[in-house]
Parts: sequence; C-alpha cells; structure tokens
Amino acid sequence: MDSMVLELGYALDTFYFLMCTALVMWMAAGFAMLEAGLVRAKNTVEILNKNALLYGVACIVYLLVGYNVMYPANPISSVIPGIDFLLGADNTTESVVAGGDDAPYYSGMADFIFQAVFAAATMSIVSGAVAERMKLWPFLTFAVVMVAVIYPVEGYWKWGGGFLDQLGFQDFAGSVVVHMAGAAAALAAVILVGPRKGKYGKNGEVRAIPGANLPMATLGMFILWMGWFGFNGGSELKIANVEEANAVAKIFVNTNAAAAAGMVVAALFARALFGKTDLTMTINGALAGLVAITAEPLMPSAGLASIIGAIGGLVVVASVLALDKLKLDDPVGAISVHGSAGIWGIFAVLLSNDSATFTGQLIGMAATFAWMFTASFIVLLVIKAVMGLRVTDEEEMEGMDVSECGMQAYPEFGPGHTSMGLSSGPGSSGKEPEEQMIPAYQASQATSKT
Amino acid sequence: MDSMVLELGYALDTFYFLMCTALVMWMAAGFAMLEAGLVRAKNTVEILNKNALLYGVACIVYLLVGYNVMYPANPISSVIPGIDFLLGADNTTESVVAGGDDAPYYSGMADFIFQAVFAAATMSIVSGAVAERMKLWPFLTFAVVMVAVIYPVEGYWKWGGGFLDQLGFQDFAGSVVVHMAGAAAALAAVILVGPRKGKYGKNGEVRAIPGANLPMATLGMFILWMGWFGFNGGSELKIANVEEANAVAKIFVNTNAAAAAGMVVAALFARALFGKTDLTMTINGALAGLVAITAEPLMPSAGLASIIGAIGGLVVVASVLALDKLKLDDPVGAISVHGSAGIWGIFAVLLSNDSATFTGQLIGMAATFAWMFTASFIVLLVIKAVMGLRVTDEEEMEGMDVSECGMQAYPEFGPGHTSMGLSSGPGSSGKEPEEQMIPAYQASQATSKT
Amino acid sequence: MDSMVLELGYALDTFYFLMCTALVMWMAAGFAMLEAGLVRAKNTVEILNKNALLYGVACIVYLLVGYNVMYPANPISSVIPGIDFLLGADNTTESVVAGGDDAPYYSGMADFIFQAVFAAATMSIVSGAVAERMKLWPFLTFAVVMVAVIYPVEGYWKWGGGFLDQLGFQDFAGSVVVHMAGAAAALAAVILVGPRKGKYGKNGEVRAIPGANLPMATLGMFILWMGWFGFNGGSELKIANVEEANAVAKIFVNTNAAAAAGMVVAALFARALFGKTDLTMTINGALAGLVAITAEPLMPSAGLASIIGAIGGLVVVASVLALDKLKLDDPVGAISVHGSAGIWGIFAVLLSNDSATFTGQLIGMAATFAWMFTASFIVLLVIKAVMGLRVTDEEEMEGMDVSECGMQAYPEFGPGHTSMGLSSGPGSSGKEPEEQMIPAYQASQATSKT
Repeated sequence: MDSMVLELGYALDTFYFLMCTALVMWMAAGFAMLEAGLVRAKNTVEILNKNALLYGVACIVYLLVGYNVMYPANPISSVIPGIDFLLGADNTTESVVAGGDDAPYYSGMADFIFQAVFAAATMSIVSGAVAERMKLWPFLTFAVVMVAVIYPVEGYWKWGGGFLDQLGFQDFAGSVVVHMAGAAAALAAVILVGPRKGKYGKNGEVRAIPGANLPMATLGMFILWMGWFGFNGGSELKIANVEEANAVAKIFVNTNAAAAAGMVVAALFARALFGKTDLTMTINGALAGLVAITAEPLMPSAGLASIIGAIGGLVVVASVLALDKLKLDDPVGAISVHGSAGIWGIFAVLLSNDSATFTGQLIGMAATFAWMFTASFIVLLVIKAVMGLRVTDEEEMEGMDVSECGMQAYPEFGPGHTSMGLSSGPGSSGKEPEEQMIPAYQASQATSKT
Repeated sequence: MDSMVLELGYALDTFYFLMCTALVMWMAAGFAMLEAGLVRAKNTVEILNKNALLYGVACIVYLLVGYNVMYPANPISSVIPGIDFLLGADNTTESVVAGGDDAPYYSGMADFIFQAVFAAATMSIVSGAVAERMKLWPFLTFAVVMVAVIYPVEGYWKWGGGFLDQLGFQDFAGSVVVHMAGAAAALAAVILVGPRKGKYGKNGEVRAIPGANLPMATLGMFILWMGWFGFNGGSELKIANVEEANAVAKIFVNTNAAAAAGMVVAALFARALFGKTDLTMTINGALAGLVAITAEPLMPSAGLASIIGAIGGLVVVASVLALDKLKLDDPVGAISVHGSAGIWGIFAVLLSNDSATFTGQLIGMAATFAWMFTASFIVLLVIKAVMGLRVTDEEEMEGMDVSECGMQAYPEFGPGHTSMGLSSGPGSSGKEPEEQMIPAYQASQATSKT
Repeated sequence: MDSMVLELGYALDTFYFLMCTALVMWMAAGFAMLEAGLVRAKNTVEILNKNALLYGVACIVYLLVGYNVMYPANPISSVIPGIDFLLGADNTTESVVAGGDDAPYYSGMADFIFQAVFAAATMSIVSGAVAERMKLWPFLTFAVVMVAVIYPVEGYWKWGGGFLDQLGFQDFAGSVVVHMAGAAAALAAVILVGPRKGKYGKNGEVRAIPGANLPMATLGMFILWMGWFGFNGGSELKIANVEEANAVAKIFVNTNAAAAAGMVVAALFARALFGKTDLTMTINGALAGLVAITAEPLMPSAGLASIIGAIGGLVVVASVLALDKLKLDDPVGAISVHGSAGIWGIFAVLLSNDSATFTGQLIGMAATFAWMFTASFIVLLVIKAVMGLRVTDEEEMEGMDVSECGMQAYPEFGPGHTSMGLSSGPGSSGKEPEEQMIPAYQASQATSKT
C-alpha cells in the first residue's frame, strides 16, 4: 500500500499543476480583453487577433524549441543553454513508487504545459504596448523568436539552473523572469515603432486616446487576477504534504492581498492627483500589485504582502505619468505594470527572504533587462528591415482592423458606422445588408460567384 | 506511512478549499459584469470602479479586522464577538499527523481566504442596488464598516458559533448569512439614497431604464453560476473521504439543478405575464435559484433541489414587480435575487433537513435582517451627514462616469458621443484626437506640459 | 489505514470530476458569448436567452430522463436503451474500501453532473447555426426532445456500451458523439429554417452579415478553450495514480497543442485566401483544432496532436466556404467547426490508436450522423407544424430581440437607436427616459399603474 500512497501524491501534485495551468492559460483571455478594452474601436479586431495568435504561436514554438532551451538536458554553460527538440517520455510508475528524494513526484507533461503558458504570458505583455500601430504578422514573427530563444535563454539563467540561479538571484514566480522580461521586450518594440499619431503634441502635450470598451478592460483585470492564483500558486511546484499545502494557501492569501492593496492605493493616488477615480488606474493598480508580489509571494506576512502590493500601486501610477513625459507611448500601461512594478517586486524580496541579497537581485534584474532589451531590439530591427513594423499613416488613421483583418469589431455601434447599422434595431430601414462591409472570406467568394 | 496519508488528506482538502476560493473570487467579476451590463452607459465606469474597489477594500478590511471578529479566539458572549488583528500561524505537520478528531485537516490560510471572498460577495450585493446614483467613495467607506464589523457580527452569530448557531438555525452556505444579509444592507441604502430620477412617475408609472449591455450582464450570470460551485461546494468544508466527496458532488448537482430550474421557470413566468421572454428575468431567475438552494444544497434530492430553485424563480419575478410598486428602485434586482429568494431558501431548508425548525429559521432570518438593516441604516446615515450619499441632479443627468471618474465606458458608441467617435472606423474623418474628452491623469498632465 | 488510502483516491477522483464539470459548464458561457458576438445587435438578446435557457432545459431534462436513457440499468438491446427516472443512491464507503477491480472509485453524482454538462454542450452547438431566425420556444422544445432522447440514444450506442462500442468505434471525448452529433442536428435545423433574408443573392452572391461584437466572440473562444481542458481532461475518467495522472497531463498538452495549431493555420490559410487575417477564422480555427483532437487526445504525441489540430484549421475554413456555396446559412460556423472538424477528428484517431479501424470509425460516424440528422429532422418537422420554426419576415427585419424578448441588447449604441441614447453620455439632452422602449415586465406594470 506504500506505493499507492506515493502514486496518490503524484496524482494530486499533477492535478494541482494542471488546474494551475488552466488558470494561467485563462490569463491569455485576460490580456486579450484588457487590451481590446483599452484600444480604440478601429484597432480592436487586430489586437484580438494578436492576442489569440500570439498564444497559439507561443504554445507551438515553446513545444518545438523553447522548453528544451529553457530546461536543457545538456547545457553548454551556465549562460548558454543547449537545445533539443522533443518532449521526453513521462515518468514511469516504477520510478515514482521507488520513493526517495530523487523520485519524480508529478508528471513531466504537466510541467511542460505549466511552463508553456508562462512563455505565452511573457509574450502577451508585449502586445499591449505596441497596440494600434504595429503590424500583425511582423509581431507574430517576433513572437516566434521571443518564445523560441529570447525568453527561454533568460528563463534558463534562473529557473533552468543557469548563472543567475547559481548567483542566488531570487524570483519565485517571475516578477523579473516573466514580467519585467516581457516589459523589456515591449520597451524595445515601443522605441522602434514610435508613438501613435496624435498622442504627443508639438508643445509637449499628452493627448488622451480613450479605450473603447472599459467593461471589457475590467473583465480582463478580473481574469488576470483569477489566473494569478495559478501563476503564483502553481509556482510552489508541489502541494501534497502539510508544509507545501500551507505554502500554497499562503501564496493565495498574499497574492490576493497584494492585488487588493495595489488596486485601492492606485485608485486613491489617482484621485488625489487628478480629482477623479480613473478606472484605468484602478485596473493597473491591481495588476501592479500582482506583479510586485510575484517575486516572493510566500515569505511575507499578509500584512507585508499588502504593503508590497500597495507600493506597486503607487509605482504604476507614477510610471505611467513618467513614460508619457518620455514620449514612450504604451496604450495599455504594460511597461509600467510589468516592468516598473516588476522591478519594485524583485527588490521587495529583500524585505522577507533572507537568502536574497541586494547585489543578487540587482544583477538578476540588470542582466535580464539587458538581454531581453538588446536581443529584442536586434530581432525587431531585422524584422523591420525585412517586413516593416508599422502600418502606414493611412492605415493607422483608418484603423488596423480594416487594413489588416478586413472587418470591424463593432460594425453597428457609433456614428462612424452609419451604413453598418442599417439593418439593426427598431430604427432600422429594413434594407438588405448589401452595402455592408464584406469580411475577407465572403468578399472573395462573392466575386467568384457560383 | 500513516502520517503521509494524513498529510495527503490535508493537502487534498486544502487544495479543494483553494480551488473553491478561486471560483468564489471569480464571482466578483460576475457581479461587476452583471451590474455593468444592467446600468446605462453613462454610469458604467463608476459601477466597474465600485465593484473592483469594493472587492479590494473587502479583502483588506477582512484581513485586518473582519475575520477575527467573525471567528474570535475569545468571544465576549454569544452575541458580541471579541476581536484581534492577526492571522495566526498555520497548522504544524506534527498536529496534523497526530491524527484524531481534533487534528486540523486543512490549512488555516485556506480557511481565511475562502472566508474573505464570502465577505466580498456580501458587499457586492449592495453595489447593484444603489447603482447609478450613490457616490463612489461614500459607498467604499460603507464597505469598510460593513466588512470590518457589520457582516462579521452576524456571521459570528451563525458560522462563528454564536447564539443563532446554538439555537439550531440552519444556513449551509449563506442564503441568509450572506445573501439576505447583503440584501438587507442594500435595502437600507436604497431607502436612504432614493430612486433614480425619472424611474417613478407622478401617477405611479414605472418607467423603463434599460441596461446598456446585455451580453455583459449575461456573462455576469454565467460567471456567478460557475463561481457558485465553489461557494456551495466549498462550504462542505471537506472532501477527502468517500462520504464527503459524495456530499460535494451532490452539492454540485443540486446547485446546478436549482439554478437551471429557477432560470427556466422565471423565463416562463415572465413570458406568461408579459408575452415576451425578458432576458433580465432569465438572468435573475438563475441567480434566484442559486440563492434559494444555498441554505441547504446537500440534503434535498436533485428533484427537490429543482423545485426549490423553480420557486426561487417565481419569487424573484414577483419580488421585482412588488419592489417597483413600493418605489424601491433596485436597478439590477439585487434585493429580489438575494433577499426575497434568500428568505425563501432559508425556509426551504425545512423541506429536507430534519434538524431545522420553523422557529429557528424564522429567528435566524429575523435577527439577521434586523441587525443588518439597522446597523447599515445608522452607518449610512452618518456617512450621509459627513460625506453625502448621492450625486447631484446635474451629475446624475450627465452620468456618474464623467463626474466621478473623468471618463466614459464606451466613448465611441452611440449618437450622444459624436465627437468621441471621429477617429474610429471607416467613416472616420481622420482628425487627430485633440478634441476628445481627456481622462483625468492625462488632463492634469497636459495642462502642466513638460 | 488501507481503507483511508482508498477513500483518498476516491475523493481525489471525485474532485477531479467536479473541477472538470465546472470547466465544461463554463463552456455554456463560451457558446453564449461566441454566438452573441457573431450575430447582429438586433438578434443578440434572443441568442443570449437561447443559450442560457437551453443550458437550463438540458440540465433539467437530462436529470429527469436523458441520463438514464444514455446509461440504462437494464438496456433493451444494444440499439435501444431502457429508461428509468431517478438518480440512484451514491456509492457507500463500504463498497469503496472493499477495493478490487469492481469497487467504485468516484462519486456517481459526479459522474451524472459531468455527463449532464456534455449533453448541454451538444445542444449549444445547434443554437449558433439557427441564430437570427429560429424562434426561441420552438428551439427550446426541440432541446427537450434532443436532450431527453435523441442525444442519449446515440450516446448509449458508444459510451453506454451499445452496439457502436461493441463494434470497436473509438471516440474518446466526443468528436462524433458530442460535436458531430450536435452539428448533424444543426444541419437538419438549418435546412428546415432556411437562410437569413439577404444572405444569398439571386445570382449566387454570398453577402456579408458581420457580427456585432467581436471581442465578445473572442472571449467565447477563450472560454471554450479553457473549458475544453475539462471536456477532454475529464474524459479520462480517472486521475488518481501515476499512469492516469500522466494521461490527463498528456491530454492537456495535446488539447492545447491542437487548438494552437488549428488557430494559427486557419489564420494563415484565411490570409492566403483573402489577403486579410479574418478574426472569425482565427476563432473557428482554434475551435476546429479542439474538436478534431477530441476523438483521441491521449495517444498522439504533442507533435501529431498539433498536426491533427492544424488540419482541423484547414478543414474549417474550407467547410465554411463550401457551406456558403451550398446556401446552408450557419451564422457562426457551427456545422463546420463541430461537424466537418469532428469528422476529420474521428478518422484522425487511426493515426495513433491501433484499436481503431477505418470501418469502425466510418460506421460510428455514419450511424451517428444518420440517427441525429433523421431524428432531429422529424422532430423539427413536427414542431414546425405545431408551433412554427421561423419568425415572420417583419420580425426578422426588425430583429428578434424586440419581437421575442421585448428589449434590446445595446439600447444606447449605434445610429439606429437615437431615441434610446438620449439619457446617456455627455452629449445627452438630459430628458427623462420616458420615450425609451419599455421592457416587457415594466410595460405591463406601467399600464396597470398603482
């Protein structure tokens, strides 16, 4: 019966990984809704396509290449990982029931899929920052290189056992390894594609470009918050004994506390600064709290976790204002949420984890930033030369949805859509929809007739 | 190996609590989407802010104060709980593997976070009832007192072992302790803030104020339904043996059956009454079925659970009509769903649970209502005197989003938004977005220049 | 202590079933959002009502009749199942701890609810195909017969141990038993109700009828993807040992890989065909990948699963174009996603599962199709004669929301809604909402006065 107990433990830990995977996968929807809500209507289909397809591309590429780069069987050095291309066989029952410290305690397949959704999350951070002007397929091309090589290399440095791990760099679930890393790539992209037309005036004005659908953006925040229970909770990597179960429970408590405090403090700070409770700051405050606690969600008390999250909320508001001063146009605040709050989070580890050192955290942060920014910048430069990064001025004015995707997100809403709305609602004229814009596939078919 | 089995059981029960917590946290998104869909466009940002921030406030306050009020280490009496301010240390492995009836079988941290999301849910009920006219920060101030003291005191009476528990009052997952309690507070608030302008005419007419986004409202219902599996299923408080696993499974079956029956019966009843299948009644019927079964989701057969839910569906439709007769303006039907169906639910316990008595249920319901309504009324009166509860007539006409939050939920949709929509869609004029409304933070920055 | 280990295994397997159930239930929201996003604004309330109510009807009817038809205690033959009407008692602790191969290892209630959400999913497939013209209550009447008898009969043939199972037909989680079965019923309904007015021109043109809310449709895709982890992962039916845990993990990997590949390939194919990245093809590509892998998500390697999904992505694009040539109007592409990709999926089983035969798969597919199509066609013919299936031309032009449900999904958005939008936004005239369309229940009340 001993072996049956070991098997049960293995099954419980695997199931825990899989449920956390489902929650982190769900974050892809969170990013999609957040970004779709914060861009203008005319660029919504494109950002939805970007978010959906980047998740697909990331999963495929991480399966084919990235996972084995990040967790190499035979690393070349502590800086340069090796590579191979297949998922190995999963653990045998024999190896599990043998017991002992080296016995596997959860499915290798579960490990892979949990890691894969992290890779996708890293890439999701970039899409928001370049929204409303970066072309779809060059973006997806970048996603291929990012998830195949750029992210896995720095992931290897810490989580694959590379030099940052050996140096004592502490980053529990990825304030830097995932979030700041994604933000560094996003920063490179934002510099290369430039700001949206009209965002910054000649005299230093920062012009408002309000998002088209704030309930969607708020839904995105809630989805991300829920998904973060899997992101941080799953990063404990085991639940099947008392100590580990307590640890996962504490991570849930701290993750939630940091998000709550970040949200409320950011809302209060925005209200103090502007006299209005800016919903986008409420949203980004919650996300900043989540990013900030991600580097160490286990060691702090719930009170300290709240404080770490609260400071994250202050950081994100200040960072959004600062980036606009620098004319770095980030439509959804991704660099501030994942980068600035991520940097705060990595140093906040020092408040509760004695094994972390200031030097270790600084080197980990700086090395990751340098690598992610430089590698992304170079790859994006090449893509720019070959495919171009940015839509034309006309396409930007018209909106990317029509030029890139051949359709509109909300064809019947708004005064700009008169001909679209004819067949809708009680005020409709009852015309047949002949004059409506024709989606790509139907247009091609209509002209070919039968 | 015996201790390892006990540890596994502890881990499984803790994991079950944490997954149920994630589902109940997700209900915060459900309330947000439900309410955002059922208010007018001009009040949408504000209700999103309310829902997001109340969740954050509730989590912080319940951590600091509420949890220890509800589950006091040293209660003063069976009516007045004690108070202290810290989460204790979690269970040791030694205490778990000692076994026996007193051994802890799941993480205290998991218990805390599961209880915390219940407190937030109670507060979420209030926000919908006072939508479109109650100011944001007075509402959040009320949330602080509600979650710190008002809700935990009555929670203590039943779930903390206070006098209602000693009296034999039966309320499994909170038809009264959570739902009717929230509705009682909502009723106090509705009376104090008064109806929306134009809702009731001089001659007794009830005027329609349709919600702006019914897909969002429907999404909210589905989210709440999903989350309720955690709400009721988690309230069994244990899953790790055959009897408990069967119980949780039966709770899933009964919760789903009651929701399904409540929904279908409410839709049929609405159709019979009005000749149309009113989607808001479909939605509220499902929620009423869920609230009704919450007091006893374990003992009934699936057939009886369906009947309890079905009657909940009838109750909610009748209650919505009745409240409008009384000129109690509840834009989303929260008092009907959580209050009226909650009262039905608490007496429906008598149909299947022999340990419940009519007197016990009546006293539990009445005492909870009296406390929640009175305490809320007094606190709101104080807040009204100090901060005011309601926006001005001008702000209400213009919409709370602009006055409270400095932004619009859907700046490009609808004929009232001409200047917002210019830069969107194929019919766009291509102007730069200079004339658009400027969100708070950007406005302040634009005037300061660089 | 042996019995405690058996109990723990039972609890873990039951919990796994219940979590998968919550995920599959969540797919109901996915279908609702997908379909609500892909229809015109004027038919949105009705499709939301259809999706919500069909889930409710399915759960009630499957409880009362369907479950016992699909898994009969005393089958009449391998083609005709028996019937009885009650859920039996759940497993006793004694039967579990007796151990042995025949001992029950998870709750019968959990089995029921997991099966029930599958029945609802089958019905959800139909609603999208007949969107924008089939009347609500005749549709729900069909749902009663479908879930009580039609679906359970073919479910019995395979999963209840009937003749298809005896024949060696392999369909792990229901590419045919659920998805193609739903599509076959949908095809019968599409033929009987006919295309939407204006969809097909006299000269063979296919006219575009764009969906009103593509972020909603994209959200629906993400929800379905997430839910599919429960749909396929739960269909392994056990997780509580090493081999089963590995199997469930592999199913997660393969399900995700197939969806990712289907999505990316469909987007590339659409772009190659039309020059634009059609978001509806991105969405349907992901869903087609999911449907295709559903027949065998365990045996393929992750690489093969990706290829199976990728071909699903090609199939769905081709199928959408082909159905339009045939003037089969399926507004959301349900027949292509669930039918065409389902057929591909059932034959793709032959690539990795040696126990499947071409003949077995062909007979299983053909028998299921013949039964589902014919039985649905006949039942729909009867309903057509008694209740009618399709709204009048005037109702179709005006939109089903007003005629069937007495309300609008987005009363304030779009130029067709001038009188609705008066009270909204900064451009509002400040009038009281007297002239607004009055929802059914309030209209009836307003005329009755007080």
